[in-house]
Amino acid sequence: MNQGQVFLVGAGPGDPELLTLRALRMIQSADVVVHDRLVSRDIMALVPAGVRRINVGKKPNHHPVPQDEINALLVQLVQEGATVARLKGGDPMIFGRGSEEAAVLHAAGIKVSYAPGITAAQGVSASTGVPLTHRGLATGVRYVTGHCQANRPLDLDWDGLADADTTLVVYMGHANMQQIAAGLIERGLPAEHPVLVVANGTRPNETRLVTQLGALQIKRANIPVPGPVLFIVGRVVTLIDSEDSTAADTLLRAPELQRVLHG
Amino acid sequence: MNQGQVFLVGAGPGDPELLTLRALRMIQSADVVVHDRLVSRDIMALVPAGVRRINVGKKPNHHPVPQDEINALLVQLVQEGATVARLKGGDPMIFGRGSEEAAVLHAAGIKVSYAPGITAAQGVSASTGVPLTHRGLATGVRYVTGHCQANRPLDLDWDGLADADTTLVVYMGHANMQQIAAGLIERGLPAEHPVLVVANGTRPNETRLVTQLGALQIKRANIPVPGPVLFIVGRVVTLIDSEDSTAADTLLRAPELQRVLHG
Repeated sequence: MNQGQVFLVGAGPGDPELLTLRALRMIQSADVVVHDRLVSRDIMALVPAGVRRINVGKKPNHHPVPQDEINALLVQLVQEGATVARLKGGDPMIFGRGSEEAAVLHAAGIKVSYAPGITAAQGVSASTGVPLTHRGLATGVRYVTGHCQANRPLDLDWDGLADADTTLVVYMGHANMQQIAAGLIERGLPAEHPVLVVANGTRPNETRLVTQLGALQIKRANIPVPGPVLFIVGRVVTLIDSEDSTAADTLLRAPELQRVLHG
Repeated sequence: MNQGQVFLVGAGPGDPELLTLRALRMIQSADVVVHDRLVSRDIMALVPAGVRRINVGKKPNHHPVPQDEINALLVQLVQEGATVARLKGGDPMIFGRGSEEAAVLHAAGIKVSYAPGITAAQGVSASTGVPLTHRGLATGVRYVTGHCQANRPLDLDWDGLADADTTLVVYMGHANMQQIAAGLIERGLPAEHPVLVVANGTRPNETRLVTQLGALQIKRANIPVPGPVLFIVGRVVTLIDSEDSTAADTLLRAPELQRVLHG
């Protein structure tokens, strides 16, 4: 067992107040912070000045560092004696590949500890007042990813997803959300089923749009929206805090999303 | 609009290090903390000495305070001018009835702000190394409750739940888990499908048991296990950190759970 170790740390959705106390302790006691592109600047500002930072979200040529290079980097840093905080957006154990990195580290005899993070669905729930479950509206909640590897079809459990009693949260769904909406309607969800679309959830530039499954017509799927986008599909969306002045402000900015989502 | 306001705060699963920075700020800036039974003593120890505490988890006669009395209490406290932190285990927006309380408060013209909490599934994931999603093992994750109102049947989307590619997390499932396991097997999940059972997740007395769907035979469902129990059903359970010495310690305590779960 090496002297060094790895902290696998969830940074949450962007607002630095949503870090856990453990996450803060870990990034402040590490020798090196290895972070992704989606970790916000406000969170990186909490890393002490003397700590080395390595951004593996982008190389100088704008491509992310391949996963096997990240794995090798973590092993090498620990073998040099460092305590490494591997900092990822959201929760490393939910669509974060944290367990893939942990498996490589365990195989190299390296100790791994975890700090969970508020996942985007929870962050958006707190910023909008839309619950993920609610008596009479949603008996449970489900997180899926709308992302798929290049040239492969979406591999989703369509029949299971089209359940009006479950809140469905789609991460990384921007490119395929129109196809997902069509699939859900085909399997029985009403075209009027409510959808909340949030870009940059919990960040100062959070932007929201309340729409319906049948109205999602993402005609220009290749146009990136600026920042991560989350879709919450379900009756709970009707509970959005509309009296909140912050919500009113951000709804004014929704035309940005309108253009991208409704063509 | 009253001077007072309500912070709806998630306390997480028990370990005080899993509080968010916002949750800590809110409980430390409130005049009154209204808390549930499941909020751990270690977390209540973070409430400043001068702050009033009201436990609505139990009345002197050991029955919890009814929801409508809690709602009335929150409104009354705010109308007296107080800033109230309403502190709940886990995340108030996931099986926490937070949005029911928010609706009553909004109707009374009271401002509500939210601090999300690490939900039990995430806390247990971090303490065991079992991810909630993992390439090749689980494309998504789903949270349901195994609790139902007295004399009513379980109302679950059985066909949708029996999806081997989705991690299924059952909250409050102790009394009905045997019935749930039988239903999942009947709809096609293998009897060998892995299940992780965790009592008191993230607390000093966390206890774990790795078992299989077909082996869950809760013969004495009325015997309460001491503290909250979570079931994680899915292939991801095979990734549990077994090398971790803490895990080995707690696995030794699993006979406690064995007796309750396997009769």
